[in-house]
Amino acid sequence: MRIGLIGLGKMGGNMRERLRRNGVEVVGLDHNPDISDARDEADLVSQLEGPRVIWLMVPIDVVDPLIRTLKPLLSPGDIIIDGGNSKWTHDAKHAEYLADAGIEFLDVGTSGGVWGLENGYALMVGGPEEAVAIAMPVFEALKPEGEFGFVHAGSHGAGHFAKMVHNGVEYGLMQAYAEGWELLEAAPIVTNVPAIFESWREGTVIRSWLLDLMVRALEADPHLDEIEGYAEDSGEGRWTVNAAVDLAVPVPTIAASLFARFVSRQEDSPAMKMVAAMRNQFGGHAVQVSKD
Amino acid sequence: MRIGLIGLGKMGGNMRERLRRNGVEVVGLDHNPDISDARDEADLVSQLEGPRVIWLMVPIDVVDPLIRTLKPLLSPGDIIIDGGNSKWTHDAKHAEYLADAGIEFLDVGTSGGVWGLENGYALMVGGPEEAVAIAMPVFEALKPEGEFGFVHAGSHGAGHFAKMVHNGVEYGLMQAYAEGWELLEAAPIVTNVPAIFESWREGTVIRSWLLDLMVRALEADPHLDEIEGYAEDSGEGRWTVNAAVDLAVPVPTIAASLFARFVSRQEDSPAMKMVAAMRNQFGGHAVQVSKD
Amino acid sequence: MRIGLIGLGKMGGNMRERLRRNGVEVVGLDHNPDISDARDEADLVSQLEGPRVIWLMVPIDVVDPLIRTLKPLLSPGDIIIDGGNSKWTHDAKHAEYLADAGIEFLDVGTSGGVWGLENGYALMVGGPEEAVAIAMPVFEALKPEGEFGFVHAGSHGAGHFAKMVHNGVEYGLMQAYAEGWELLEAAPIVTNVPAIFESWREGTVIRSWLLDLMVRALEADPHLDEIEGYAEDSGEGRWTVNAAVDLAVPVPTIAASLFARFVSRQEDSPAMKMVAAMRNQFGGHAVQVSKD
Amino acid sequence: MRIGLIGLGKMGGNMRERLRRNGVEVVGLDHNPDISDARDEADLVSQLEGPRVIWLMVPIDVVDPLIRTLKPLLSPGDIIIDGGNSKWTHDAKHAEYLADAGIEFLDVGTSGGVWGLENGYALMVGGPEEAVAIAMPVFEALKPEGEFGFVHAGSHGAGHFAKMVHNGVEYGLMQAYAEGWELLEAAPIVTNVPAIFESWREGTVIRSWLLDLMVRALEADPHLDEIEGYAEDSGEGRWTVNAAVDLAVPVPTIAASLFARFVSRQEDSPAMKMVAAMRNQFGGHAVQVSKD
Repeated sequence: MRIGLIGLGKMGGNMRERLRRNGVEVVGLDHNPDISDARDEADLVSQLEGPRVIWLMVPIDVVDPLIRTLKPLLSPGDIIIDGGNSKWTHDAKHAEYLADAGIEFLDVGTSGGVWGLENGYALMVGGPEEAVAIAMPVFEALKPEGEFGFVHAGSHGAGHFAKMVHNGVEYGLMQAYAEGWELLEAAPIVTNVPAIFESWREGTVIRSWLLDLMVRALEADPHLDEIEGYAEDSGEGRWTVNAAVDLAVPVPTIAASLFARFVSRQEDSPAMKMVAAMRNQFGGHAVQVSKD
Repeated sequence: MRIGLIGLGKMGGNMRERLRRNGVEVVGLDHNPDISDARDEADLVSQLEGPRVIWLMVPIDVVDPLIRTLKPLLSPGDIIIDGGNSKWTHDAKHAEYLADAGIEFLDVGTSGGVWGLENGYALMVGGPEEAVAIAMPVFEALKPEGEFGFVHAGSHGAGHFAKMVHNGVEYGLMQAYAEGWELLEAAPIVTNVPAIFESWREGTVIRSWLLDLMVRALEADPHLDEIEGYAEDSGEGRWTVNAAVDLAVPVPTIAASLFARFVSRQEDSPAMKMVAAMRNQFGGHAVQVSKD
Repeated sequence: MRIGLIGLGKMGGNMRERLRRNGVEVVGLDHNPDISDARDEADLVSQLEGPRVIWLMVPIDVVDPLIRTLKPLLSPGDIIIDGGNSKWTHDAKHAEYLADAGIEFLDVGTSGGVWGLENGYALMVGGPEEAVAIAMPVFEALKPEGEFGFVHAGSHGAGHFAKMVHNGVEYGLMQAYAEGWELLEAAPIVTNVPAIFESWREGTVIRSWLLDLMVRALEADPHLDEIEGYAEDSGEGRWTVNAAVDLAVPVPTIAASLFARFVSRQEDSPAMKMVAAMRNQFGGHAVQVSKD
Repeated sequence: MRIGLIGLGKMGGNMRERLRRNGVEVVGLDHNPDISDARDEADLVSQLEGPRVIWLMVPIDVVDPLIRTLKPLLSPGDIIIDGGNSKWTHDAKHAEYLADAGIEFLDVGTSGGVWGLENGYALMVGGPEEAVAIAMPVFEALKPEGEFGFVHAGSHGAGHFAKMVHNGVEYGLMQAYAEGWELLEAAPIVTNVPAIFESWREGTVIRSWLLDLMVRALEADPHLDEIEGYAEDSGEGRWTVNAAVDLAVPVPTIAASLFARFVSRQEDSPAMKMVAAMRNQFGGHAVQVSKD
């Protein structure tokens, strides 16, 4: 099988490599011509045979213009796959936009990060059964070797929705472990926190891949002295909370995890300025004068 | 009526003043002899007539030794009142310790801060009815002039418990207002946040004394530029969460308020260091190198 | 001054009454002809003189079609005011839609509930200065009599945004008080919870109008035995959390309050089913068999 | 090696079995004589040779009286191990109580549940190095076969503290997964939630043993229809939050998880009664009349 792959960055580049290792031919296209296998979208399309499968692995803002560029170049039966971190609400719109040209659309949530090249990528797919079947060799090449790591989650948007929830859960898990680590570090009677985390890797209820990663991080830097307590958030955490709010699903730990990241990036907390100002007003409690 | 008052700090000094204004004679004692009316506890006791009422307005750590000092100096029917920010679990122990000498004990949660001298102090009292009746002239002199501001909340400990819950609620209220303020400040279309807070003082569901104080603070410093986002917590907030946990009462907003204060005092968040470390491990996301 | 008022329900009906009491003539229109002063929108418009002011007090879904109906009936300089619980993101769109016809738009967040008729309505207004000035007699008639209760919060959307934040804060305040009440009810040493709440009305940091309302509720039903623990949420609470997420503003107490309402409406918690299932899997802990 | 093991319930019985399989002789004692190897504590002690090792696997309330019974029966150099779910604050007191008789004390947090017999038990140990060395053959027999699952966490109490934090983290992890599951179940476009969870077992960031258990639970009951959303909490979750509060460590997700369990066990939420009562007071919103 031969497919097109647009976007050869950190994720896309590794995915091309894994696809080729597993026998899928890839025509890659990137804004960097040095790593591209095609001159442009038209050239890429011309190198594929119908039904064409074109996988997009590009930033969310680029997806829409790219689909507009591709539509007139493609034929009925061709399939566009959005494998990036796109918002699930976009997928049905893309599918609808392509439908009158007979072009199919699949949304794929992709997990695996820098480990995906070797371990495979977990894939969560949304869209119609027939299109999924056509693209299956691609999924087989990308997914982990074991029996898991692939799911057809539902209709258009379900793939990105499942990946979004995956990331929301991930936020909660990371925060829970991090709180436990902070608490252990704060307890005077506990003398060997990295060894505790390492010991948890077997026999405990909380053993996990994230735990393994924490052990690696603590091996390199036992108190994380070198790392600042500053955490970005990608869109998925926010979308998870917003989707939960819209569906009236309570998500206290996921929301708390997201808010902790927001706070980590603030130079100073506006809310806590106000709390300090109120304490000063009613109790005469001293406020700390801002250093700014 | 004449009573003893031990502890003439910011709160105790104002309370002596309010008591005297309202016709209660006060023999004050402080570690600062310049402001004391008695040389020591024995001298203070000797200046009172039975049944003596001695009000303690001292830091929590001083309450226990002070009660031990006072016990042999007092007579059956005398009353010790702990009006400070003591933990409610101490009160029944103090009452029991004093019971064999026939000395009564009342716990009083006192609210009012720097405004109490003029506006009166809200008083929440725990202990037996008879002792409350004897001390009532003192309560009448301290409380606000209106029909509210005094309650006999229950048995030993109920006064401090009620005050503790008052403060726990206060934490939640302050945090909720502060979140709203931060959100308004963050919204580009909103141009006059102090005026919004001021407008809320009438006709709204959220009008309150805390709102009035926020308006005062924003009048002096419209964006709170001069104040650092750093908030201490007194014991009551922590005790509220711990009591709720022990009684299986869910207190998500009060706990969130307390945790926000903890975070506000951290140079850097250990938990967020770990979150950043994990993100780096699985996704190759850059970490910010600590500046320390 | 004479204005049009469309929507004469619980809120709109009272507002017509308050406007008339304060000297503003009102042509009211409702889907119920018995309480209407005009046959339809055209008739209402014909009874007003330019620059006309038409106040909409209708459900959010009706605003958009109503504006479409009114636009061709109005003249340059006329003003449409949306005083309902509309989402702030709609306002700029409405303003833009009306702009080519020279019709102005103001968004007004209105607070006051069933108390507004007597006490006045707090008004938070978004839109251009000139339109606000023209409508000012209307605002003066509706707002409380004191010096507060009205604010021009910013440009289009700022009025509804401020009202949204007002309601988000309100959620947090209510939840904080409610947690405190539940904790007091759970403490065996506390014997008179309604009296504690009543006492808090003076001298405390947490006195507020909401506290006054709680005292009223507890007077009627001291343990709230007659009321189910079931709370609806209007859109504003959800919008507040979503806006905060979009602006990266941490709102832990407001989110917790919203989630508590979601939970209150669930027959059984799906999340807790899963927690119970996991406990059963790893610990052999018994699960409760669903009664459904 | 031969040791004494007191408490042969669900956990203790399995541990005796695993110890024997791995070559450690066990004299077991239980309040059920049918499964005991000794008549009473004195008989058990008489069947061991110094330095004796006696492992307690009993409910927290029984630990203290049992240690008082054992102390006069033991000799200098003997070791009592508390392997149950005891509170870490008790351990230093027990160590001190035994110290004047030259008896050593170790606290061991034990994880493994019903899976421990086959997979081994994760052990977190607190106490002095020398005593740990003497008991090491017991730990070796109980722990999992791999390189992990055992840690000497620090001084007296550190073992139970580490296990407490383990459980606190466990609460947070379970809640985060459960929230994700509820959200997937609520999304109409997602059609196969159990398959999504199964797919996550490979290639994802959130793969874990808890995830494996959820997949098992969903295999048996795809929507958990048979299970009620009711979750007990053992002491460790509460102790974690209380320890965090005492150490000023923010634990928003762990606290939220604990509170969710509290709520799951309430017939009706008192706090939400109050929220409903307030809404009724200010807005005339209908309340639902309690069915009780």
